Amino acid sequence: MNAGKKSERRISIRFDLASGPRIGPGKIVLLEAIAETGSISAGARRLGMSYKKAWLLIDAFNNTFHEPVISTETGGEQGGGATLTETGKEILRLFKKLETEAGSATEATRKAFDDLVKAPPGKKK
Amino acid sequence: MNAGKKSERRISIRFDLASGPRIGPGKIVLLEAIAETGSISAGARRLGMSYKKAWLLIDAFNNTFHEPVISTETGGEQGGGATLTETGKEILRLFKKLETEAGSATEATRKAFDDLVKAPPGKKK
Repeated sequence: MNAGKKSERRISIRFDLASGPRIGPGKIVLLEAIAETGSISAGARRLGMSYKKAWLLIDAFNNTFHEPVISTETGGEQGGGATLTETGKEILRLFKKLETEAGSATEATRKAFDDLVKAPPGKKK
Repeated sequence: MNAGKKSERRISIRFDLASGPRIGPGKIVLLEAIAETGSISAGARRLGMSYKKAWLLIDAFNNTFHEPVISTETGGEQGGGATLTETGKEILRLFKKLETEAGSATEATRKAFDDLVKAPPGKKK
């Protein structure tokens, strides 16, 4: 049984921007979901997140960077679509790079943690 | 205004052990607090965590690794002290190593994020 979309990452990183706000998988996963579904509401639904929470996260995100991360079109028949701006795409790209870098750099140490773990029991509990 | 002990880390890492459980700053900060205060209840209090939650985290931690991470002495006049076992100390050591490795490996990329941030406003909001 998979633990759901939020937990697919084997390693997850959060970090503070120099200006204060924290960037982490929660916001990034939402950006990805919006990019893939083309709307904030569909992206939020996919993550089991309320529209309001998604909107607040995006609003904070939009106000963090030079430019908004999401561009929304209002008033259409579809109720408004949302696409990632160039800044939004760059943030996703950088975050994946960061995850890869951190994953590679910590591989031996994570292995050392695994060596401290007891052998999995024969029966799942 | 500092956001408190839990948020002192500029970069925070969570990762899944091969056997499933996730390791992250929440449990590690608790281990550190117990090591420094010498008891689960004092460590929990320092973090604003309930004793019950701390105990459950430590119990899960104790059952994750080859050996317990905390050794408790019950029945003493102090109401029982708690110390880190060698495994507990090793976990703290490895986690700090992991944070350092991830921090170094991602330094340039985190800088690239900062470059996407707008200049801090003159007035704090």
